[in-house]
Amino acid sequence: MSKYQGWPRESMYIPPGDALTKPNKDTVYDAIFIGGGAAGRFGSSFLRALGGTQFTFEIDNHLGGQCCKHNCVPEHFAYDNAVNMDHLRWFAGHMWYPEIPEKIPMVPIFDTFRKVRDTNVYKFMTDQSKGQLGMEFEVFKEAKIIDPNTVEVAGERYRAKNIVIGTGARPQIPDIPGVNLKNVLTNRDLVKLDYEPEKVVVIGQGKTSAGYTSFFSACGCDVTIVNRSRIYRWLDDEVRDFVISNMKRRGIKIHEGVTIKEIKGSEKVEAVIFEENGRIVEVPCDTVLLGTGVIPNSEIAKPLGVEIGPNNEIVVNKKFQTSIPNVYAIGDVNGPPYVMSAARQSGMIAAKNIMGEETEMMDRTMPEFMFTTYEVTWVGLTEKECIEKYGDAVVIKMPPFNLDIGLPLAERSMVMAHVHPEMSGFQKAIIEPKSRKFVGFHHVGYGAKAAFQYLAVLLDKGLTVDELATYHELFLNAEHFIQLTRLRAGQKNLSSL
Amino acid sequence: MSKYQGWPRESMYIPPGDALTKPNKDTVYDAIFIGGGAAGRFGSSFLRALGGTQFTFEIDNHLGGQCCKHNCVPEHFAYDNAVNMDHLRWFAGHMWYPEIPEKIPMVPIFDTFRKVRDTNVYKFMTDQSKGQLGMEFEVFKEAKIIDPNTVEVAGERYRAKNIVIGTGARPQIPDIPGVNLKNVLTNRDLVKLDYEPEKVVVIGQGKTSAGYTSFFSACGCDVTIVNRSRIYRWLDDEVRDFVISNMKRRGIKIHEGVTIKEIKGSEKVEAVIFEENGRIVEVPCDTVLLGTGVIPNSEIAKPLGVEIGPNNEIVVNKKFQTSIPNVYAIGDVNGPPYVMSAARQSGMIAAKNIMGEETEMMDRTMPEFMFTTYEVTWVGLTEKECIEKYGDAVVIKMPPFNLDIGLPLAERSMVMAHVHPEMSGFQKAIIEPKSRKFVGFHHVGYGAKAAFQYLAVLLDKGLTVDELATYHELFLNAEHFIQLTRLRAGQKNLSSL
Repeated sequence: MSKYQGWPRESMYIPPGDALTKPNKDTVYDAIFIGGGAAGRFGSSFLRALGGTQFTFEIDNHLGGQCCKHNCVPEHFAYDNAVNMDHLRWFAGHMWYPEIPEKIPMVPIFDTFRKVRDTNVYKFMTDQSKGQLGMEFEVFKEAKIIDPNTVEVAGERYRAKNIVIGTGARPQIPDIPGVNLKNVLTNRDLVKLDYEPEKVVVIGQGKTSAGYTSFFSACGCDVTIVNRSRIYRWLDDEVRDFVISNMKRRGIKIHEGVTIKEIKGSEKVEAVIFEENGRIVEVPCDTVLLGTGVIPNSEIAKPLGVEIGPNNEIVVNKKFQTSIPNVYAIGDVNGPPYVMSAARQSGMIAAKNIMGEETEMMDRTMPEFMFTTYEVTWVGLTEKECIEKYGDAVVIKMPPFNLDIGLPLAERSMVMAHVHPEMSGFQKAIIEPKSRKFVGFHHVGYGAKAAFQYLAVLLDKGLTVDELATYHELFLNAEHFIQLTRLRAGQKNLSSL
Repeated sequence: MSKYQGWPRESMYIPPGDALTKPNKDTVYDAIFIGGGAAGRFGSSFLRALGGTQFTFEIDNHLGGQCCKHNCVPEHFAYDNAVNMDHLRWFAGHMWYPEIPEKIPMVPIFDTFRKVRDTNVYKFMTDQSKGQLGMEFEVFKEAKIIDPNTVEVAGERYRAKNIVIGTGARPQIPDIPGVNLKNVLTNRDLVKLDYEPEKVVVIGQGKTSAGYTSFFSACGCDVTIVNRSRIYRWLDDEVRDFVISNMKRRGIKIHEGVTIKEIKGSEKVEAVIFEENGRIVEVPCDTVLLGTGVIPNSEIAKPLGVEIGPNNEIVVNKKFQTSIPNVYAIGDVNGPPYVMSAARQSGMIAAKNIMGEETEMMDRTMPEFMFTTYEVTWVGLTEKECIEKYGDAVVIKMPPFNLDIGLPLAERSMVMAHVHPEMSGFQKAIIEPKSRKFVGFHHVGYGAKAAFQYLAVLLDKGLTVDELATYHELFLNAEHFIQLTRLRAGQKNLSSL
C-alpha cells in the first residue's frame, strides 16, 4: 500500500497561533493586502522590506495561494510522475528497466501531494512569511472593502493608506449542457481525486490541462482531447509537430476545430458529444477535465466602483493602480498572463509605488513553458514570426536539417536518446541574419526551463551569434544552443544548421 | 534479456567512403589539424566557415574525439541511469513506484552505450562534419610533424601555412604498486566492462570519477573512496556537506587524507591498501577505478622543439599559438581546464587567428559541474571566498536559514521532495552586500545546469539583486534564485535568507 493513502481531501492545516498577528484598529497601515497568495505574499514582504507597515487578510488556511494548493505544485508533481512512468514504459526491455503495470493508480499520487502540502509546504509558507519576511497576517479571514481606505473583517474595520487586492482567479466553467455532472473536473478537483479514471476527455488545451492530459495518458487512461481551435497554436510549427506527434505516439487522440454540444450522463458523466466537420461524434468517458481557462475574482472590488474589464479583470495601469489610485490590484485578479512571475512582480511593483518609489514593471520578453511528458519551453519569436517580421530567418536546430537522427542530449534525456533516439527531444534557435541577433529559442525535452529565464534576458540585451559562441557550455547541456551556434558563427553570411 | 547485449567492445564503425576526402599534396592548406576531437572538429569547421582551407587527420575511426568515445557521453548516460535507480530505490513503497533489485547489472548499460555510439553518434559526427560543416578529413590516419609547415601521413607529406595540434589527453596512471592488475580500470576501460563489479574502490575524486562513484553505488556495489586530500574541496562548504552527507546516506564510504600503499592481488585486483592516520587499512575489492586525472598527449610536438610544460602540456599563448607561432595547440593537449567549452573555443580562437582575425579567448567566469546522484553546479565564489575577498557575504538559500525543511522544487526533484524532502536538493546564491552584486551561485539537484551557462555571463555583467528581482522566473524552477532574491530586494541593507 502506498504511504499517505487516504490523506484527508480538505486541508486540516492551521497555522500555529504565534505565527499570526492581530490587526490593529488604531494603525493606519501603509497597505492592507486582501489575499496572501503569490502576489499578496510577495507584495506584503516587499513592502515590509522597504520599511512599510502592512496587514494581510487571507481567506484560506495558508499563504502562498492557489499555486501550492492546487495549481503549479501538483501540476509539476503530476508531470514529474508522468515522465517517470513514460520513461519506464519506453525503457522496459532495455538494460535494467522494470515493466510497470498498464494502469497506474492516480489517487495515491494526489494523496501524497496533499499530505506534503498540508504539512511541509503550508508550514514553510507560514514560517518563512512570519519569521524571515516579517509579514503580519491572519488566515480564515474574509475581507470586505468599505471604501478606498477601509476594510471590514469579521465585523471590525481597519484602515490603510492603500488597499491592495490580490484575490486571484478561479477556473472558468464553460456553458455546456451537463457541465455540472459528477466527474466533470477542473484542476482544483483533481487534487482531491477519489476514484480512478479510465477514459478521460479533456475539453480545452491550456498550459495546465496540457500537462494533465499527458499525465492521464502516462497513468494508462484512454485520453481524448476536444478543442474548439487548433491546439498549441502558440508553438513554433516544428516544435508543435514534435509535441503533437509524440502525444499521438503515446495514444492520445486529438479532435481540433470542434463544437462541443453536450456532456452526457445521468448523475456521472458518460460521454462528450461534439460536432466535427459537420458530423456528430460521441466519445464515451468516465471523466472530463475542463481546461477552459480562468476568470479573475474581481467581485470584491465591484462595490468600490473601480473599472472592471470585459473578462472580469480589474483594470490597472503599469503601476498596478486601479481607477482609484490608492487601490491596487495585483496577480491574477488583474487578468492575463496568469503566471507566477507576473503575479509576484506585480506585488513588488505595487509595494514600491505605495512606498513612494514610482516604478513600472520592466518590459521584458517573457519566457513560457508547458508540459506534455516533455518539458516544452520557448521565448521570443517562432520561425514563421521571424520571417513575417524580418523577411528572413536562420535556424539552428537539433536534430539538424537533413540529419534526422536523435542524439544523446543531457540529463534526463540520455536514456531515451539511447533507446528511442527519435523521441529524445527537439530544439531550435531563430536568428535574424542581418543583425546576427537571436530572436527566439524553443526547446522540447528536459532540463532547459531554468535556462530560458536567462536566455529571455539575454535576448532582450541583443544577444548575437558572435557573442553566444564565446559562452561556456556545460556539455552535455539540455539545450545545445551555445555549441551549435559556434559551428555557424564563423560564417559571414549565416546559414541554417 | 537486455537489448544490445554483447555489443562488440571495440567500435566497428567505419565512415562511408564518400564522407572522406583525399588530402591534396599540391595544396598548401591554411591549416592542417592533427586530431578531429572536440577542439579539432570545432576548429576545422570554424576555419571552413571563415573561408579557409583545412585538412584534418584523425587517428581513430570517428570525429568528435574522446567525448563521445568514452568521456562525457557515457558519463552522462551512467549518471542518468544512476539517478533513475536512485529515485526508484528511494521512491519504492510510495505511490506506484516499483521495487528494483538490490544489484543492477552494469554491463548491459555500457553495451547499450556502445551500440548507440557506434551507430548513431559516430554517424552523426561524420555526416554533420562533412555535409553541414564542409570539413575535409580522413580517419585511421596517424600524422607525424616534419616541420612547422609539413605533416607526414602514411608516407606522404602534406603542407600547410599552419599546423594545429589537437591530440587530447589520456588518463594519468598513478605510480602505485599493482596498478596494472586486472580490473584496475580507468573511465576508458569502464565503457568496455565485461564483468559485474561487486566491491569497488575509487582512487581519486575528480569530476569524472565522482560521477562513476555514485553510479557504482546506485547499481548496488559496495563503494569506497580513497583520496589523498579532502574530496570536493572546490565546493562551497554547505554544498559540500549536502553532497557528502547524501553520498554517505547511500552507503558510500569515504577515506580522505590517506597515502595509498598498494593495489593488492594476483592477476586480478583483490584489495587496496592505504595508510590512514598512521594506521594501515586494507579494503577488499574486485574492482578499482582510477580517478587520478589526465595527462596531455603532447609527444607528437616534441620533435618540433615547442615548449612543453611541467605536466606534459604544450605551452600556448592566449591565441593558442605554441612557441612556434604557426603551430597551434588546442584542447586538452594544452593542459587544464580539460572541459569541452574550452576545447571547442580554443579551436575557434585558433581558426580566427590563422585567418588573420587577431583574437584571444574571452576572459569569462567559467561555470562548472560534477555528478553524484545529484547534478552539482556552481559558478563564481563560495561564501567563504566572498568573505575573504570582500569582508562580508549575504546568502540566499533553499532550504532557507533555520527552516530546515525540504521543499518541492521542480522537474525531477518533485517526487523526492514529496517522499524524502530533506533529500531534494540545496541551493545558494552569494551576494557582496555593498555593491548588491552576485558573486556566486551554487546548486545541488537537477535541471539547473543549462541555466548556469547564462548565470555565469550575467555574473560577469555585474548582475545585482535589484536586477535579478525583475527577471521572469519559470516557476517551479530548478533553481529559485530569481524569486528568492525578490523576497530580499526591497531591503536597503540586505540580509540573508
